Amino acid sequence: MRVYNFSAGPAMLPEDVLKKAAEEMLEYGSSGQSVMEMSHRSKEYQAIIDACEASLREVMNIPDNYKVLFLQGGASMQFAMIPMNLMVKGKADFVVTGQWATKAYKEAQKFGTANAVASSKDKTFSYIPQLDESKYADYFHICLNNTIYGTKFSKLPETGNVPLVADMSSCILSEPIDVSKFGLIYAGAQKNMGPAGLTVVIIRDDLVREFPEDSKVPTMLQYKTHVDNGSMFNTPPTYAIYILRLVLEWIKGKGGLQAMKELNEKKAKIIYDFLDGSKMFNATVQGEDRSLMNIPFVTGNDELDAKFVAEAKKNGLVNIKGHRSVGGMRASVYNAMPIEGCEALVSFMKKFEEENA
Amino acid sequence: MRVYNFSAGPAMLPEDVLKKAAEEMLEYGSSGQSVMEMSHRSKEYQAIIDACEASLREVMNIPDNYKVLFLQGGASMQFAMIPMNLMVKGKADFVVTGQWATKAYKEAQKFGTANAVASSKDKTFSYIPQLDESKYADYFHICLNNTIYGTKFSKLPETGNVPLVADMSSCILSEPIDVSKFGLIYAGAQKNMGPAGLTVVIIRDDLVREFPEDSKVPTMLQYKTHVDNGSMFNTPPTYAIYILRLVLEWIKGKGGLQAMKELNEKKAKIIYDFLDGSKMFNATVQGEDRSLMNIPFVTGNDELDAKFVAEAKKNGLVNIKGHRSVGGMRASVYNAMPIEGCEALVSFMKKFEEENA
Repeated sequence: MRVYNFSAGPAMLPEDVLKKAAEEMLEYGSSGQSVMEMSHRSKEYQAIIDACEASLREVMNIPDNYKVLFLQGGASMQFAMIPMNLMVKGKADFVVTGQWATKAYKEAQKFGTANAVASSKDKTFSYIPQLDESKYADYFHICLNNTIYGTKFSKLPETGNVPLVADMSSCILSEPIDVSKFGLIYAGAQKNMGPAGLTVVIIRDDLVREFPEDSKVPTMLQYKTHVDNGSMFNTPPTYAIYILRLVLEWIKGKGGLQAMKELNEKKAKIIYDFLDGSKMFNATVQGEDRSLMNIPFVTGNDELDAKFVAEAKKNGLVNIKGHRSVGGMRASVYNAMPIEGCEALVSFMKKFEEENA
Repeated sequence: MRVYNFSAGPAMLPEDVLKKAAEEMLEYGSSGQSVMEMSHRSKEYQAIIDACEASLREVMNIPDNYKVLFLQGGASMQFAMIPMNLMVKGKADFVVTGQWATKAYKEAQKFGTANAVASSKDKTFSYIPQLDESKYADYFHICLNNTIYGTKFSKLPETGNVPLVADMSSCILSEPIDVSKFGLIYAGAQKNMGPAGLTVVIIRDDLVREFPEDSKVPTMLQYKTHVDNGSMFNTPPTYAIYILRLVLEWIKGKGGLQAMKELNEKKAKIIYDFLDGSKMFNATVQGEDRSLMNIPFVTGNDELDAKFVAEAKKNGLVNIKGHRSVGGMRASVYNAMPIEGCEALVSFMKKFEEENA
């Protein structure tokens, strides 16, 4: 029996997508092959990757002057690739709102001056700090949704002519965003898009830098390499791209990102409303900075937290333990988490609170 | 109906593996989740990656002083990662035996002195050149099997104390090799191991270099990062690793690499024997340098080649066209290609030769 999986990523995928993938595993259409076995240079596979890009452009309403890249290495690889490509003058600004934002900030220090313009470390990253306008930098980096601490930028920083760069790993496709406000968007696929091992980069074309042949930036870490080759400089993660395509078709069938936003708001409200009324459980983030995707909460008692996590698992509510660096609990409720999963979690929390009052 | 797929990669996978993957797509064991949905930090997934590594160590007989890493980015990423990590004195030797070996050689020039000690470019890479002993270098790089040109090193170069580094993308797991002769082995998974998007690196532990914190080598490109974190510094390509594990179980069930070698020799002999007796078709590689995995051949007439490729496809023998850089035909017959596929190809070639004589 399938469980409700509250993992922060890799995470639940729509059951319809998994069923389709299982059906097509031995033969995709009338190709005689699994998608996993297809030459990436074949017509059949080219049609899959083209359809995936077209669906992503449609669903996210990506303007024509942005390139879509299907890469590998996760957000962690982007933490280096972004400064290597974008730090032309040698300076970038960072808003430090959690563990991943900190990693991006630290990695960039290898390649130039990384400037922390604001941080919420003083209160365990439980809020989004106020920002001054960006002054002068090659780019301005934010982590739009912070997976571990459960915060989200409710409005984007004003960065003027400085390109805004955003890690959207844990919120991409969860609601409409205005891509034209960004210079570069990146996301590991394993939360809201598909399997681990695929990283999507959306980059404004004027930021695609040309390197001299003797540049010490590895060929594979130059965005231009992938732009020039339609993400096929070498073999891309073909199967993960196919699954992303299925996920995008599923989103379109549900009504696109506006419908996803409404559903995600409804799901999050079910959980936050319960937490705000509970005497046992408390949400760790307040007000408009709350994430729709990752909802951390605590009882304030480590033993009770552990008991809750263990009993939840027995009731088919799995991976509800908070990140090892913060403890407590966290419910990650990405697009593929059905509303019934959120309701089941709240019912169980109510019961647990009554029994352990 | 499934076809015989002679693609150079991504390539055929064992049908039993695909069936198992399809069966387990919605729920792995009693986990309630697809492997694709599993947190990489969960006990369930840790058991999968541990079993995968253990099986690879068993099947390849990997000594304890070698680390096994599950990475991303393909061989092309290794072309940079290897010099960045191993070029301590700043010099490496390369045997240039084809397109991929050339790419490895050129990429290394970004990071130090890359020295081409031998090349077979004079005869379109149709043989493995004679080698002098390596003198003085940080490492000595070969591409053990050349996918495009269909050549293979029948004996390894003597490199003394200089670590031998080998790209084995197109021959790993095809026959037993003595891992202890190598300093580092790497392979993209998409030919003989599993889906695209997984790169396996086997590195002798004394070659795992420690970098100072301010090193300009990206954290993700330091082998030590992955050694220290059991390939879990960030989310690995979890599903591709699971498929590799299934492929390794399949190999073990068939009798391991010695059995694979015997089967692969038998399969290759069927095709080479026909080519050597044919008046229409010619193998482009002669003698002991012939690859067991990739068998290029030509008629010497471009129109006839094109006709052959088109008619083969109609007969369920697909992706038999040679690499775009060399033309002609190529039959890639990795482990998962059944002997019946090689027999079907030869039957078809015979018929085609009779009909077009």
